[in-house]
Amino acid sequence: MIDLRSDTVTKPDDRMRDAAYTADVGDDVYGEDPTVNELERKAADLVGTDAALYVPTGTMGNQIAARVHTERGEELLADRKSHVVKYELGGAADHSGLQVRMVDAERGVLSPDQVAHGIVEEDLHRPGTGLVWLENTHNARGGLAIAPEKIAGAAEAAHERDVPVHLDGARLCNAATALDVPVSEITAPVDSVMFCLSKGLGAPIGSMLAGSEEFIENARRVRKLFGGGMRQAGIIAAPGLEALENVDDLERDHEHAALLAEGLDGIDGFDVQPPETNIVLADISETGLETETVLERLAEADVLATQFGPTTVRFCTHRNVSHEEIETALERIEAAI
Amino acid sequence: MIDLRSDTVTKPDDRMRDAAYTADVGDDVYGEDPTVNELERKAADLVGTDAALYVPTGTMGNQIAARVHTERGEELLADRKSHVVKYELGGAADHSGLQVRMVDAERGVLSPDQVAHGIVEEDLHRPGTGLVWLENTHNARGGLAIAPEKIAGAAEAAHERDVPVHLDGARLCNAATALDVPVSEITAPVDSVMFCLSKGLGAPIGSMLAGSEEFIENARRVRKLFGGGMRQAGIIAAPGLEALENVDDLERDHEHAALLAEGLDGIDGFDVQPPETNIVLADISETGLETETVLERLAEADVLATQFGPTTVRFCTHRNVSHEEIETALERIEAAI
Amino acid sequence: MIDLRSDTVTKPDDRMRDAAYTADVGDDVYGEDPTVNELERKAADLVGTDAALYVPTGTMGNQIAARVHTERGEELLADRKSHVVKYELGGAADHSGLQVRMVDAERGVLSPDQVAHGIVEEDLHRPGTGLVWLENTHNARGGLAIAPEKIAGAAEAAHERDVPVHLDGARLCNAATALDVPVSEITAPVDSVMFCLSKGLGAPIGSMLAGSEEFIENARRVRKLFGGGMRQAGIIAAPGLEALENVDDLERDHEHAALLAEGLDGIDGFDVQPPETNIVLADISETGLETETVLERLAEADVLATQFGPTTVRFCTHRNVSHEEIETALERIEAAI
Amino acid sequence: MIDLRSDTVTKPDDRMRDAAYTADVGDDVYGEDPTVNELERKAADLVGTDAALYVPTGTMGNQIAARVHTERGEELLADRKSHVVKYELGGAADHSGLQVRMVDAERGVLSPDQVAHGIVEEDLHRPGTGLVWLENTHNARGGLAIAPEKIAGAAEAAHERDVPVHLDGARLCNAATALDVPVSEITAPVDSVMFCLSKGLGAPIGSMLAGSEEFIENARRVRKLFGGGMRQAGIIAAPGLEALENVDDLERDHEHAALLAEGLDGIDGFDVQPPETNIVLADISETGLETETVLERLAEADVLATQFGPTTVRFCTHRNVSHEEIETALERIEAAI
Repeated sequence: MIDLRSDTVTKPDDRMRDAAYTADVGDDVYGEDPTVNELERKAADLVGTDAALYVPTGTMGNQIAARVHTERGEELLADRKSHVVKYELGGAADHSGLQVRMVDAERGVLSPDQVAHGIVEEDLHRPGTGLVWLENTHNARGGLAIAPEKIAGAAEAAHERDVPVHLDGARLCNAATALDVPVSEITAPVDSVMFCLSKGLGAPIGSMLAGSEEFIENARRVRKLFGGGMRQAGIIAAPGLEALENVDDLERDHEHAALLAEGLDGIDGFDVQPPETNIVLADISETGLETETVLERLAEADVLATQFGPTTVRFCTHRNVSHEEIETALERIEAAI
Repeated sequence: MIDLRSDTVTKPDDRMRDAAYTADVGDDVYGEDPTVNELERKAADLVGTDAALYVPTGTMGNQIAARVHTERGEELLADRKSHVVKYELGGAADHSGLQVRMVDAERGVLSPDQVAHGIVEEDLHRPGTGLVWLENTHNARGGLAIAPEKIAGAAEAAHERDVPVHLDGARLCNAATALDVPVSEITAPVDSVMFCLSKGLGAPIGSMLAGSEEFIENARRVRKLFGGGMRQAGIIAAPGLEALENVDDLERDHEHAALLAEGLDGIDGFDVQPPETNIVLADISETGLETETVLERLAEADVLATQFGPTTVRFCTHRNVSHEEIETALERIEAAI
Repeated sequence: MIDLRSDTVTKPDDRMRDAAYTADVGDDVYGEDPTVNELERKAADLVGTDAALYVPTGTMGNQIAARVHTERGEELLADRKSHVVKYELGGAADHSGLQVRMVDAERGVLSPDQVAHGIVEEDLHRPGTGLVWLENTHNARGGLAIAPEKIAGAAEAAHERDVPVHLDGARLCNAATALDVPVSEITAPVDSVMFCLSKGLGAPIGSMLAGSEEFIENARRVRKLFGGGMRQAGIIAAPGLEALENVDDLERDHEHAALLAEGLDGIDGFDVQPPETNIVLADISETGLETETVLERLAEADVLATQFGPTTVRFCTHRNVSHEEIETALERIEAAI
Repeated sequence: MIDLRSDTVTKPDDRMRDAAYTADVGDDVYGEDPTVNELERKAADLVGTDAALYVPTGTMGNQIAARVHTERGEELLADRKSHVVKYELGGAADHSGLQVRMVDAERGVLSPDQVAHGIVEEDLHRPGTGLVWLENTHNARGGLAIAPEKIAGAAEAAHERDVPVHLDGARLCNAATALDVPVSEITAPVDSVMFCLSKGLGAPIGSMLAGSEEFIENARRVRKLFGGGMRQAGIIAAPGLEALENVDDLERDHEHAALLAEGLDGIDGFDVQPPETNIVLADISETGLETETVLERLAEADVLATQFGPTTVRFCTHRNVSHEEIETALERIEAAI
């Protein structure tokens, strides 16, 4: 089975398992887990912030950020197709009472103008904007790698209006790899960032939320409220530390995605744009088949992918899929359709 | 001073004051205010529902509806420029934890396709849609009167997916008047409707929320939660009953708006479309003046209007402004600019 | 029918109706209703604060206070039998996400020790206390009039810990009357106070929320969120101004309550303590009758009261019940039991 | 250092680390992690329910239960000293808008009478009770083991009123061990139960939430909302499976606690009751020392404990503290005081 549904399916390798086996641990609720502490330091260094916090999932990291940056009755300004809008069960409204102002952002990144017009000043009738939200790479728009200057432009427009900016960087290292810039160049303009150790970097569990000392202190408390205050978390932070060593491997996933996209685009009825990172979106409307049918045929041929819109199939490359498997997958898909 | 800021400024006339003076009252929390009870019956009859509830404001009526129709963690689907999105302080998220899915609806009314695509089916990652929201007349888009068949189209698309529909009819009677249809023809396809006795109908205070018996029973409880359970409310329900007699007068407000729009459009730098009801939006960008400056000059000339976007001024006609005052206002505005 | 269920049933007299008839009104959302403005000034003067806000109900006033004083995730410290705990539909948790720490306070007023021990300092596991809540007179404990020094003691203990204090003074003027002190002596130590113009003072609708300028500015915005931003509210503020003239009449209600209590205590099976204000609680367990049965027999004899616990009946005197009616009521009750 | 602060400090042993090393894993958000699935089956079997869900912390398990069992605007009935009231940051109000009705329950378990009187029937003024909450062992009351018939009594009183019951069993296996009954005998009467694999059972991370198939299906969705949907969770579920094998070892922790309590009670100024499980509460008021001073002196002597009230110190035995270490701790404490 070649599983291209998501890079979330990556399994920990022996190095990671070994790290878990030998991890020095303590009670992280007391701040005494040395492995977690090391991971939080290294993660903060990677993104260039003063502090970081280990969280069990990217969703929790994002939702904590939404809450810590805002007060009751504010707005969050985000692209309509961002993960926080589509895939977090409406958490910004549910956990933090925020109205999400959704805008259609080209390539998923709000332009300075969109930020300027989207920010609402608090008045008697309107909630003020409490947070501007960015995402990089942008999942639902096909793994787009957003350039640092785009992030900076949006952030500057927000900061001019005294509104903080959070970056959902679930696949942040994919963006840095694709753009060939340091991670910290992307994150420099924002006030907080979440990135995942699972997904492409291959850790079994865990994400990092990073920001200022004060932000992380507040985030630590909200993590407890959300039920994310784990105990001997070093046992999963240790594979997370190993995951940080995997950043350079993402280049290979992107090459695989390019290869896959090229091959898929050659299949009758598939329309595929060259991918920017590890996500390949295939418009299969010209096959004349239902998307469910396409996915079923692929699955019968031992290739897994996911539906991503009425006529779109998403393929996601990752460290558990080799060059040969990409080639095999293409053969199987062609045969199946 | 000719006050064209809003039809909310209408003052109760002698008939209404007399009604307040002589109103038979009781404790409405116990359901014992005969005047409130009569008003609720008449309001339900007007919109063709089984029951209705008196509420102190349209915002409360809308927010009660949002809550009663939904469960925690659902979505509300609405036009981006609807009142509930722009002018209710983010209440749907704040009071009821709802994520508002904002779409750009032509003339402010969602097409059946927009409803079909905007409704989200609950899954592991996504909140399901709990309510579709319509507004008529549509305030922020310039008092547009939405035809019954448009309401019916959106409602049908929602009902096919088992999602209820609420109509924010703050100026519902203006729509019925402009379209020359019975109010109940507009409301027939929806599950609940809120309409205001204040605004164009001239009551000093109060709005009606209408729907099924069960809906109103739940709404009565939520009204208490929101602090809307008033006691001898008959004293303001009585002018509200008088307000229901004023529906026919709205025709005159619409004529005044047409007259005003025509006159304004003739003023250098003003660009004004013919209005559908009592709201006139003037694009003043070609005057070369800041919108604030325009409003100040008008105020100095004893004409009040409101800003309604970066270069848009809203004028609203109502029962306290006569034909002559419209003409006078036009003269003053022309002189001031 | 002699209605002793509650002082909420009081009907506006001719003076109040006349005030409504002649009220000078404007749009209060714009702050332009002169009658509301006058009422807010007079109310602030009465309780000795800088500012006040007119709200449609006491519940809304209380809930606005709970929200304005606190942040997300805090605690509210209150007597277990306070109105906010028992009769506001859990609004503090629902609207503002507050955990209500309930304590059993003697006579319903927290001692300085109870405040000191009940206040929770925010830590990693615990929400901090955001507000201490007092009530005067204390409804559910039988209309007890809480002395200024008791209020001051609790408030001082709270302020030493930097926690603000709100006073639910739905029947505040009853307390001042019973204690023979100026209203402002009771309210001096607290940060905000709500008191009702309806109930014993006889206005048909409305309550006042009072506090600092900043508090009221925030409260005005939250009032809009809760749907309490009414328009020509002067029409009900005018009777409210008349209600402020009725404070001295409360003495008579208290005398009637004393008379009623004495009479009831003489009835076989009734156990009644002397009341402090206008609320009389009768323990009817020794009658051997179900409480529902007692209420039914009273209703058949044209006397209305309410159940207030398993074997307790509440009688409430008010300005619409005369001395003779109290005597008549006693005769009827004695005959009915 | 002998760490008696909490059984949360227990570190995974080689068996657990080995299990992590060799764990068969998959993506648990897709339900494909075989180790998690096995753990959920075994946990459900242990407590006698149809289904179970792996969650990162006990707090998350509890908060999910509070939400799944209730609707907006309801009450949760709990002992005042329960963990959900004291140590979960007010989550029931914050996440689910629930008012927590706190009662003082003898030994922390509500009597049938307390349940009967504490349950509020929904009416126009009052939120209805949506959930009755029990805890076993009861942490804040000193690790009390609540007998099955007490749980059953409270549950029966709740069920008679159609209110479901959740059991916070963070230390459920300690209770079963102390009472010498099967775990499922304790849990049989309740609708859902949470118990921790960390704490005394020694897993580094994780707790189980168990209940009906429908309950767990809803819980799985709320887990995602709370950010608890982890990916290759088998890597920590595997030590969790090992933890289930450690139930019999708890007996030894209880013996250590008894030994510790006896020894402590013999120290001048210490007043200690015989413990029921692994928690020892020492009243140190007669030492004449501040509690902080006592804890500091202990820490200097390499013994760690925690403050648990103004003059109370909590000691908690666990699998990382041996018989000799208990004796050493006692010597050190005696010398230090």
